[in-house]
Amino acid sequence: MTNIKRYIEEKSFVFEPYLLERVEILEAPVSIKESMAYSLKAGGKRIRPMLLLAVLETYGQKAEKGLDVACALEMIHTYSLIHDDLPAMDDDALRRGQPTNHKVFGEATAILAGDGLLTYAFELIASSTAHSPEHLIKLIQMLASAAGPEGMVGGQMADMEGEKRMLSLPELEYIHLHKTGRLLAFSVMAGALIGGADKRETALLEKYAQHIGLAFQIRDDILDVEGTEEEIGKRVGSDESNEKSTYPSLLSMAGAKEKLAEELKGAYDALASLGRPAPLLESFASLIVERTT
Amino acid sequence: MTNIKRYIEEKSFVFEPYLLERVEILEAPVSIKESMAYSLKAGGKRIRPMLLLAVLETYGQKAEKGLDVACALEMIHTYSLIHDDLPAMDDDALRRGQPTNHKVFGEATAILAGDGLLTYAFELIASSTAHSPEHLIKLIQMLASAAGPEGMVGGQMADMEGEKRMLSLPELEYIHLHKTGRLLAFSVMAGALIGGADKRETALLEKYAQHIGLAFQIRDDILDVEGTEEEIGKRVGSDESNEKSTYPSLLSMAGAKEKLAEELKGAYDALASLGRPAPLLESFASLIVERTT
Repeated sequence: MTNIKRYIEEKSFVFEPYLLERVEILEAPVSIKESMAYSLKAGGKRIRPMLLLAVLETYGQKAEKGLDVACALEMIHTYSLIHDDLPAMDDDALRRGQPTNHKVFGEATAILAGDGLLTYAFELIASSTAHSPEHLIKLIQMLASAAGPEGMVGGQMADMEGEKRMLSLPELEYIHLHKTGRLLAFSVMAGALIGGADKRETALLEKYAQHIGLAFQIRDDILDVEGTEEEIGKRVGSDESNEKSTYPSLLSMAGAKEKLAEELKGAYDALASLGRPAPLLESFASLIVERTT
Repeated sequence: MTNIKRYIEEKSFVFEPYLLERVEILEAPVSIKESMAYSLKAGGKRIRPMLLLAVLETYGQKAEKGLDVACALEMIHTYSLIHDDLPAMDDDALRRGQPTNHKVFGEATAILAGDGLLTYAFELIASSTAHSPEHLIKLIQMLASAAGPEGMVGGQMADMEGEKRMLSLPELEYIHLHKTGRLLAFSVMAGALIGGADKRETALLEKYAQHIGLAFQIRDDILDVEGTEEEIGKRVGSDESNEKSTYPSLLSMAGAKEKLAEELKGAYDALASLGRPAPLLESFASLIVERTT
């Protein structure tokens, strides 16, 4: 697993300044730029952009080819966190141990910063010179579908509606496959498209993404019970106090851990069928399952 | 001016069902679809999509060629209204005489419906089969720029920051050119791109759009003072009670009306230089200036 950590560290040297520069160059009111940059800088794990770059690497492509799409991905992920944290939504004061956007900039600016990041993400891809128009269109279509009402936004809606009542396992899975799964899957599918994967390989990579997406969520739920406040930077057990359905609450802790192992195996199996070595993607899956924050 | 009203009525028969069908076909939670559809149906004047179609007509193109982009435009306009009306923003209970989205569906759903409309707008364009990939990319780039931090979102931010203090005329103009002007300009520029206008014509059409955009805003400010509550569907004088800077407050009512006439003349002049008859666009400008709601 060391190699994936080294890989992420290495790519971060390129990705982080490129990401922040995308906001700096905007000709827009300082306040909205500050608000957008604040949440982008707030120390996320960069799972989505790094996953995209790792798929590119698997297909022998340079990371530079994926930078614009990787930035767009992180912007959309970040916008979703800003809006999710709002008082009307999850009403969170802390995110990754730091005050949430609306706590620093106020609600109105936080709403606009989210809107701005979401909109700018599509402009970034459309303006990218690294791809053919056909690929750009396909990427935008895939990203909008993954992030929109049939994807992340729909998952968030279902999540909100599912609060305060016990969900069935299929209902919980629907939420996670949409709320977080679709965008994670896009990370991998975008890498597959740019990298030149064929139809069979793309389907396997999508399967891989779905498994690590669910694994990520199960691990999140487990951490929420087992973690310490310092480690995960939000109130421990906050899901439970909201009476939210989680994998441990539906399956017991042992059952959740078993399901986590199954998802990890599913991810490995998909990679094994790929027919090309994918050590980075393998260790990416392990990283997600073994993470403690 | 009769012809533009007849034109809009005629095109509405095609546009309205097409717009609502775009939401009906979504595989998403019913609640988010209902919330999105509610605000789309809330009886807007459809100025942006109709302006786009009128430019297409001016260039001898069928309206069908612009339907997807017209829907995307109206979705982005509608999302901006939903978010603007939120308690953290303008805190409006009524819009076009009907309860605002968050009053009917709650704040959280309203935020998500806005996010969903914004995201889906880009998917709609990217999935359109009516244009070449090069044109689709250009359209998405232009739309994202017009709607994002350098456009509408930036204008909204500046507007919020400008509340509660007297603005200069250039500051007020910056706000309107961004908050409403950029998206109106996109309506016309998109029509020019699809219609095959050359560079000179496109620049003239952009000028036309900027003039009618400012005219629209000045007329809005004048109506806010002179209108009746029933006519414009929101509390009359609400801008004044918020101590917002407006054209009448900066220029006096007579000065505002004079500026309105100047903007209208600017729009006509741009059309006159176009070198092709544009009766629909002429009467569109008059419609904006003479409207009473």
